[in-house]
Amino acid sequence: MTSSVGVVTPQRMRFDQPLPLQSGAQLPAYELVYETYGTLNAQRSNAVLVCHALNASHHVAGLHADDPKSLGWWDNMVGPGKPVDTDRFFVIGVNNPGSCFGSTGPMHTNPATGRPWGADFPVCTVEDWVDAQARLIEALGIRQLAAVLGGSLGGMQAQAWALRYPERLRHCVAVATAPNLSAQNIAFNEVARRAIVTDPDFHGGHFYAHGVVPKRGLRVARMIGHITYLSDDSMEAKFGRELRDAELHFSTQDIEFQIESYLRYQGDKFSEYFDANTYLLITRALDYFDPARAHGGDLARAYAAAKAIRFLLVSFTTDWRFSPARSREIVKALVDNRADVSYAEIDAPHGHDAFLLEDPRYLAVMRAYFERIAADVTPGARA
Amino acid sequence: MTSSVGVVTPQRMRFDQPLPLQSGAQLPAYELVYETYGTLNAQRSNAVLVCHALNASHHVAGLHADDPKSLGWWDNMVGPGKPVDTDRFFVIGVNNPGSCFGSTGPMHTNPATGRPWGADFPVCTVEDWVDAQARLIEALGIRQLAAVLGGSLGGMQAQAWALRYPERLRHCVAVATAPNLSAQNIAFNEVARRAIVTDPDFHGGHFYAHGVVPKRGLRVARMIGHITYLSDDSMEAKFGRELRDAELHFSTQDIEFQIESYLRYQGDKFSEYFDANTYLLITRALDYFDPARAHGGDLARAYAAAKAIRFLLVSFTTDWRFSPARSREIVKALVDNRADVSYAEIDAPHGHDAFLLEDPRYLAVMRAYFERIAADVTPGARA
Repeated sequence: MTSSVGVVTPQRMRFDQPLPLQSGAQLPAYELVYETYGTLNAQRSNAVLVCHALNASHHVAGLHADDPKSLGWWDNMVGPGKPVDTDRFFVIGVNNPGSCFGSTGPMHTNPATGRPWGADFPVCTVEDWVDAQARLIEALGIRQLAAVLGGSLGGMQAQAWALRYPERLRHCVAVATAPNLSAQNIAFNEVARRAIVTDPDFHGGHFYAHGVVPKRGLRVARMIGHITYLSDDSMEAKFGRELRDAELHFSTQDIEFQIESYLRYQGDKFSEYFDANTYLLITRALDYFDPARAHGGDLARAYAAAKAIRFLLVSFTTDWRFSPARSREIVKALVDNRADVSYAEIDAPHGHDAFLLEDPRYLAVMRAYFERIAADVTPGARA
Repeated sequence: MTSSVGVVTPQRMRFDQPLPLQSGAQLPAYELVYETYGTLNAQRSNAVLVCHALNASHHVAGLHADDPKSLGWWDNMVGPGKPVDTDRFFVIGVNNPGSCFGSTGPMHTNPATGRPWGADFPVCTVEDWVDAQARLIEALGIRQLAAVLGGSLGGMQAQAWALRYPERLRHCVAVATAPNLSAQNIAFNEVARRAIVTDPDFHGGHFYAHGVVPKRGLRVARMIGHITYLSDDSMEAKFGRELRDAELHFSTQDIEFQIESYLRYQGDKFSEYFDANTYLLITRALDYFDPARAHGGDLARAYAAAKAIRFLLVSFTTDWRFSPARSREIVKALVDNRADVSYAEIDAPHGHDAFLLEDPRYLAVMRAYFERIAADVTPGARA
C-alpha cells in the first residue's frame, strides 16, 4: 500500500483534569492519541478535525513506520491533492476515550483499583467524546476549526460539535449519518452486545484478568455489523448464491456459500484485534445520541444553536443503516433554521460502506466543498 | 383464546420405509405428526395441505385439550367461515422431519447409535420435506390436493410441491416467499447458526447428553430473526426510541430502550422451547432451496413442469426479508410459461410477519381465491 501522506507518527496528550461525563460520572486523568497531517497556518485557521466511527481510530491517513499495511482508514479522502487537501489544511485525527486503539480505554488501568477498567470504564456519549476532543483542540492552540468532518458515528460527532461548540467551527461535514438511531439500528446493536456479554469468556467485562477474550461474541457482533454495512444489492452482486466448493456438503456447520466464508473471515479477523468492552461502549454511544431529545424531539430547535455554521450533509442511496431519509431530517432541521446547508445524495451501490470507498461523484462533492472551506478560511481569499 | 375450530388432537403416522434425501443420505423409519380440520369429501377432492415455516408446526388451527393458550399458528386463516373454510375444505397440517414439535427430529433416537441424533440428524431440504409430506398425503388416500398453501418457508414447500408433484395438486398458494434466499438472507441465517454452534453449551450438537441447552446462541439467533421479521417502520412505530425507565442508566448491559426489552424477551422465550439442532436444519433448508439451480438459474424453465397448476402469490410491501420483488420473480416465471397465476401485493406495514396477521385486504384475497378453489374442486360446481 502507498499513501501520499507518507509515514506518520501518532502523538499522545495527557489531560490531568478529569472529564465530566453526561452520565454524572467522570473520566479521571486520561490520554488521547492523535495524528496530524499538513501544516497549521500562522492564523491557525486551517485545521480540520476528523472524527472516527466504530472500527477506526486517529490513524486517518498515511502509514506507520513499522507497518507497510497500516494505511489510514480515510487515506483516499485526506492527503496532498486529495479532497481534504493536506497542502491546504492541517488535519487532525483523534482517537476517542473508550477505544482500543491507544487513547485511554477499558484495557488500561483504573486508578481506583489498579486493575484494568474492563466493564467499569465509564460510559461515554458522543457529546463526552466531543468535549474530550475540544480540550485537545484547545491544547493545540486552535480557537476555531475550519471544519469538523466525520462519517457514520463520526458524523454524529461532527453534529455534536456544531450543537455544543458552535463558535469553534466554521463548517460541519457529516457523511452517511443520522440525527439518532432508529429502533432497528438499536436492535442490531443490542443483539451484538448480547452476543458479547453472554459469551462465557466475557467474564462480566473483566476477561483481561482471565487471560481470555470473548471471541465468539465479537465474531457474531462483527458478522451482524457487516450485514448492515453492505447493501442487499451489493452483497448480491458480490456473493449472490455462489458456492464455495463445486458441490454442496449438505451440512449445517460447513461453509457452503461464499457469503458465509466472507462473514466468518471478517468475524475472525475482528475478534483478533478489537476489544469487547470498546464494542459495548461505542455501540452505546451510538444508541444514546439524540440531540432532539432535550428539545421535546424537535430537531430544528436543537439546531437553532448551530445556525451560524455551514453544513455539508452527504448520504448514499443504498445505505439502509443510515438512509438518505435520515440525513434529510438533519437538512430539514437546518433549513428550518435558515442555516447554510448543502446536501448531496450519492447514487452509490455499496450501502453504508460507501462513505469509505472511492466513488468519483462522492469524492468530487467533498473536494468542491473543501475548496469552498479553503477559500473561506484562507486569509486574503474569498468564499 | 378461542378458536372456531375448537379442540383438536394431533395424530401420528409411522413410515417404515426409509426416505431417500437429496444429500444422498436417507432418513430411516420415521414418524410424522399431523392435524386435520374439516371433512374429506367422498371424492377426496377438497384436501388442502398447509406447510409450516421456521417456528411453527402441524398445529395450524384450534386448541389442544390440555392447553387453553395453544391456539394454532394460522387460526385466523383456517377454520369454519375463515378464508380457508373448513366447512368446505379438509385441511391438513403436518410437522416436518427435523422439527422439534413432534415429528422425528434431532432429539429422537438415532437407531444406529441408540442415542439422540443431535447434530447427526440428516440434513433435509425443502424437497425432502415435500417427499415426506407426499407419502402422508398418499397414506391418507388423497390422490390430488385441492391446494398446497404456505407462507415464507411454507411457501417454498408449496412451490416444491408444484415443481415436484405437479399432478398431485390443483392450486399452489405461496405467501411472503421467494424463489431462493438472497446473499443477505443467507448471511442472517449464517450469523444465527454461528451464534448457536459456538455456544459452549452446544457441544457439537450433542448437548442432550450433557443436560444443557445452548440458550445463549438460541437467544441471539431469535433476536436476529425478529429484526428481519418486522419492518423498519413497524419497529419504529411500535418501539421507536422509547425508554424503558424514566431516566437513562448509562450502562452497556442494562436495558435502556423498549426495543431491547422486547428482543431479550423474545430471545429468552424462544430459547426455552426451541431445539438448537432444529434451528440449524431449518435455516439450512431455507438456504438450499433454489429450484432454478438445476435449470442454469432459469426459474421459468424450472416452472415449465408446473404450468398446469393454478397459482396465487401474495407479498407484502414492507417485507424486506422476502420482498415483493422476490414474489414477482416467481410470477414472471409463471407468466413466461403462460400458467394461470394471480398475484396480490398487499400494502401492509408489518414486514414479513404480515403473512400471519389480521389484515382485511390480505384475508379478503385469500378468501376469494379459496372460494375459487372450492368451486374448482367441488363436484357439480363450476370454477
